Amino acid sequence: MSQQPDYDTMAMNWIGDWAGRRAALTPHRPAILDADSDTRLSYADVNARANRVGAWLLDEGGLGKGDAICIVTRNRVEALDLYMACGKIGTILAPLSYRLRPRELNDLLERIQPRAFVYEDVFDSLVEALELPDSVATRVRIADGDDNGFQPLLVHPEREVNTPLAQADPFLYIHTGGTTATPKVCIVPHRQMLWNALDMIVTGGTLMEQRQLITFPLFHVGGWNSLTPVFHAGGYSVLTRQFDPGQVLDVIEGEGITNFGGVEAMLRFIAEHPRFPEADLSSVTGITSAGAPCSSEVMDPFYARGIPVVQAYGLTEAGPSNFMYGGIDQELETIRAHNRSIGTSMIHCDFRIVDQESGEPVSTGEVGVLHMRSLHNFGGYLGQPDRTRKALLDDGWVDSGDLAVQDEEGNVRIMGRADNMFISGGENVSPEEIETVLQEHPAVAQVCVVAMPDQRWGQVPVAAVVPTETAGGDIEADLRTHCREHLAAFKVPSRFAVVDSIPVTGAGKIDRNSLGKQLDS
Amino acid sequence: MSQQPDYDTMAMNWIGDWAGRRAALTPHRPAILDADSDTRLSYADVNARANRVGAWLLDEGGLGKGDAICIVTRNRVEALDLYMACGKIGTILAPLSYRLRPRELNDLLERIQPRAFVYEDVFDSLVEALELPDSVATRVRIADGDDNGFQPLLVHPEREVNTPLAQADPFLYIHTGGTTATPKVCIVPHRQMLWNALDMIVTGGTLMEQRQLITFPLFHVGGWNSLTPVFHAGGYSVLTRQFDPGQVLDVIEGEGITNFGGVEAMLRFIAEHPRFPEADLSSVTGITSAGAPCSSEVMDPFYARGIPVVQAYGLTEAGPSNFMYGGIDQELETIRAHNRSIGTSMIHCDFRIVDQESGEPVSTGEVGVLHMRSLHNFGGYLGQPDRTRKALLDDGWVDSGDLAVQDEEGNVRIMGRADNMFISGGENVSPEEIETVLQEHPAVAQVCVVAMPDQRWGQVPVAAVVPTETAGGDIEADLRTHCREHLAAFKVPSRFAVVDSIPVTGAGKIDRNSLGKQLDS
Repeated sequence: MSQQPDYDTMAMNWIGDWAGRRAALTPHRPAILDADSDTRLSYADVNARANRVGAWLLDEGGLGKGDAICIVTRNRVEALDLYMACGKIGTILAPLSYRLRPRELNDLLERIQPRAFVYEDVFDSLVEALELPDSVATRVRIADGDDNGFQPLLVHPEREVNTPLAQADPFLYIHTGGTTATPKVCIVPHRQMLWNALDMIVTGGTLMEQRQLITFPLFHVGGWNSLTPVFHAGGYSVLTRQFDPGQVLDVIEGEGITNFGGVEAMLRFIAEHPRFPEADLSSVTGITSAGAPCSSEVMDPFYARGIPVVQAYGLTEAGPSNFMYGGIDQELETIRAHNRSIGTSMIHCDFRIVDQESGEPVSTGEVGVLHMRSLHNFGGYLGQPDRTRKALLDDGWVDSGDLAVQDEEGNVRIMGRADNMFISGGENVSPEEIETVLQEHPAVAQVCVVAMPDQRWGQVPVAAVVPTETAGGDIEADLRTHCREHLAAFKVPSRFAVVDSIPVTGAGKIDRNSLGKQLDS
Repeated sequence: MSQQPDYDTMAMNWIGDWAGRRAALTPHRPAILDADSDTRLSYADVNARANRVGAWLLDEGGLGKGDAICIVTRNRVEALDLYMACGKIGTILAPLSYRLRPRELNDLLERIQPRAFVYEDVFDSLVEALELPDSVATRVRIADGDDNGFQPLLVHPEREVNTPLAQADPFLYIHTGGTTATPKVCIVPHRQMLWNALDMIVTGGTLMEQRQLITFPLFHVGGWNSLTPVFHAGGYSVLTRQFDPGQVLDVIEGEGITNFGGVEAMLRFIAEHPRFPEADLSSVTGITSAGAPCSSEVMDPFYARGIPVVQAYGLTEAGPSNFMYGGIDQELETIRAHNRSIGTSMIHCDFRIVDQESGEPVSTGEVGVLHMRSLHNFGGYLGQPDRTRKALLDDGWVDSGDLAVQDEEGNVRIMGRADNMFISGGENVSPEEIETVLQEHPAVAQVCVVAMPDQRWGQVPVAAVVPTETAGGDIEADLRTHCREHLAAFKVPSRFAVVDSIPVTGAGKIDRNSLGKQLDS
C-alpha cells in the first residue's frame, strides 16, 4: 500500500466549521434562541455572525491559529459566536468560571496566557480584581446596549474566514477541579468535541428534532457538550443567562422544549417551584441527570408527570459524555426501574472496570475503577505532562478515578470515588485544594477537609481544624472569611470544626473516613 | 503537551464491532429481514450470528486479522454475517461481482490472494471455471437446505470474538472498473466505512427510524453503503437476492419501506411494472438515485405519487457517499426543481472544483474536475502505489475524474467524465479494458470503443473495428463471442461497426468524439 495521509493531523476545511457546514446543509432551520435577549438565529445567521466575529478577531484582535481567548460570561449568544469563530480560525477558547475568586482565576490566566480577554459587564468588579497577564493584547467587554462592546465584532465586514484544521488541533481549554491541590486545564482537541457529538448523535437517535434547553454553564464542558451535538445534528437550542427554575418552566412552555439536562440540585429546584404543578410539560420527552448520581426522590415528580429522567455520566478527560442510560423503545416503568444506572457506554466508546490494586478487570458485580477509551479522549493537561500520564494510560485508556460496578444486564452504576474528590451541586471539589488554602492561615496548625452529605447540594465540604497555640478570637469566622477571599463559594467549607487532633490510620495516613464519621455524630 | 496516542492506528474494541455495539444499545430492535428466506433478525440476533461465524472462521477456517475472504453471492443474510464477523476479527471481506467472467475473476483472485472462498450454489458453474489461487485454504458453498454448507458456521459454539481494531485497519477490498485497462481493487479501511456512515447519519437526519430496502448488489460498495449507515444508526434494512421490480413493490407494501435507492434503470423498471399504478407506496418518504445522473422523465412517476427522488453522488475512492441533494424542510416542488443537482457535500466532506490544466479552483458556473477530501477517503489501490498516487493527491484530496459545476445557490451538478470511463446501468465501464480484449482477436487490426446513448442503460459500449487483411466470415459474431467469453455482459459492445480507419485528432490521438458522432449517424 502506498503512503497514506495521517488522518489525525491532516487539515480539512470542515473540521471546526460547525457553523459553515450546517449553514450549507440547513441554512433556514432555527438553531439558537438566546432567551434573555430574545435573539433568534437560523444556522445561516450563526454562520454569518461567526464569520464577522472571526474576521474581527483576525483583523482587529490580532489573533491567529493556536492563540487563546479567555472568556468570563454567563450563557449568552456572544459566547456561542466566539466558539463558532474559534472553530473557523483555529483559535483556542478558554471559558473561565465566574464562580472562582481572583486568586484562582489569576492562576488559570497565568497558565493559559491568553491573547484576548472577553467578559460580561456583570463581572466588572471581579475582572477589576484580576491581574491579566502581559499576553493579553485585546479586551472586549460585553454589555447590553453598548455599541463599543461586542457590537464592533458583529458589524465587522463579513467574509468567509474558515481555515483548514486537523482533528488533533486544540479547540478548548477547560478547567476542572478535583483530585489535587491545583485545578487542571484540560486541552480539548477538535477530535474530542467532534467525536463526542457523533457519539451522542448515533447513540441518542434523533437529535435533529430536539428542542433543547441548556441549563449547564458554558464554563464547564457540560454546557458546550449540550450545545454541540444538537447543533451538529441540526437541532434547536435555547440559552438562558443562568439557571433559574421559574425561567426553565417558562421556556419549556414557550418554546416546546423536548429535552434538557441538569444536576440533581437543579431538578430539585424545578420540581419545588410553585408553578411546577400547573406548568405544561407535555413537550418534554426526556431529562438527563448528570454531574453526579441523582436520587430517585428528586426524579419522582418528573416520572409522576410521565417524563423519564435518566442518568448520564462522563468526564472532561474522557468524554465529556461517555455513558447514558438510553431506554430506547423501553416503557417508562422499565426506565424508572433503572434510574440508578448509567447504562452502557456510548456506541463509539470502550470501557472496562479494573481492580484498583492489580489493574486486572473485575468480574460482573464487583466494584472497581472505571476506565474509558474513545476518540473523544482529551488532549492532556496544559503544561502538566506528568499529570497527563497518570490520567491517560497505555493503549489509550483514561482513568476516571470513579468506582463502578456492572450488573448482569450489562448496565453500569457509579459507586463513588477512588480518591478524595467529591461533587457539590455539579462542581468537582478537591479537599486538598481547600486544605492548601487553609494551611496558609496563621490560626491553622493542621487541617483536613471531608465531604458531608447535604440535602440540597448532594455533598458539601466540612473542615476539621487543629488550631495553633497562638490562635484566638472567632477562629471559624476568620477561616470562613479567609476561604471566601481565596476560594469559589462552592469550595468554602459549610462548617469549621475545631478538633484536638486529626485521626490517622495504622499506616499513619489521614483517616478521612473516621473523621467523616466523627464530624457526622 | 505530553505524547498523545496516534488515534488513527490506535486499536479500540468498538471499531469494527458494529454488531456488538448495537446489540449492547438496542438489542431488541429489528435490524434485518432477508426477504427471500424470510429470516428476521434483531440486533442481538445479528451479533450472536456474527460471533458464531467469527468463531468458526478463527477455529475452523484458519483465518486471522489481515487475511482476506472472497465471496461470490447475491444479496443474502450470510454475506451480512461474514461482514459483521470480519468487523469483529479483523479479517478483510472481498466481495466479487458475479457479473464478471472467469478471466476477470481470476485476475482479481490472483491479486487478492484470499485465504477463504465463499460462494452461493447458483454460481456453481461460474466457480467451477475459476482457478482459485493456492492461498485458498477454506471453501464454503452456501445452499439453501444444505446442512454442510453455511450451516456449520451458524451452529458453531458462540463466544465473543471481537478484537480491538484501528481506524486504519483494512475492512473491505472492493473492485471497481473504469479509467484503465485493468480493474482496480480499492482498500476500504474501517475509518472509511465508519466515517461514511457518520456522514450519512448526521447529514441525513433520522436514519434510526428508516425502514430501507437495499437494491444495490453487495459486490459494489453501494450495497454495503446502504446497509452500514442504517445499521449503525439502529434502523431496519431489507435484503432481496437481486433487483426485481415486482418484489420491490411487494416489499414496500409488506414492510412499510420508507427509503430505497437505485440506479436510473431500476427506477424505470419499477415505474414500468404493471402493478406500479395500484401499489401502495404511502410509506415511502424518499428515493435516492445513484450511480449516474438520473433523467427527470424517470423521476416523474414517483413525483406524481408525491415521493421525492434526489440525486446522490460518490465514488468508492472518496465516499462511498459524498454528495446528496438533501431537501430537508423543503417542499416537494422545490426538491423537484433541483432534480439535476447532487446538492452540496456531506457535512464532514470537503470538495473543490478545479481547472483540469492548471489545477486552480474554477469560478462558480464554470466546469472543472471534482476533488473531494474526507475521513472516508479510501486506503489506496491494492498493490498499485502509482495508481494510488494519481487518485489520492497532496493534502488528502481525491481526484474523482468527474466534471462538475457549482451554481450560485451552492448546488453541484455532474457534467460528465474528464476521461473515457462511462457508466452503463450503474456499472463503471472502461473503453480501454474492452479494447484490450478485442485487440487479442486475430481479426482486429485496430479498435476503438465509445459510449453511445441508450434509453434503458443510459449508455452502452459500441466498438469500431478496422479488420486485419486476413479477417473473414462474420466478424461481428466472432467478436461478440470473443467478448462474451472474456468480459462481463455489461462490457460487451452492443454493436461492432466495421470501419476503414479510426479518426485521429490533429495531435495524432484517437478522436473519440468524432468517432462517436460518426457511429451515431
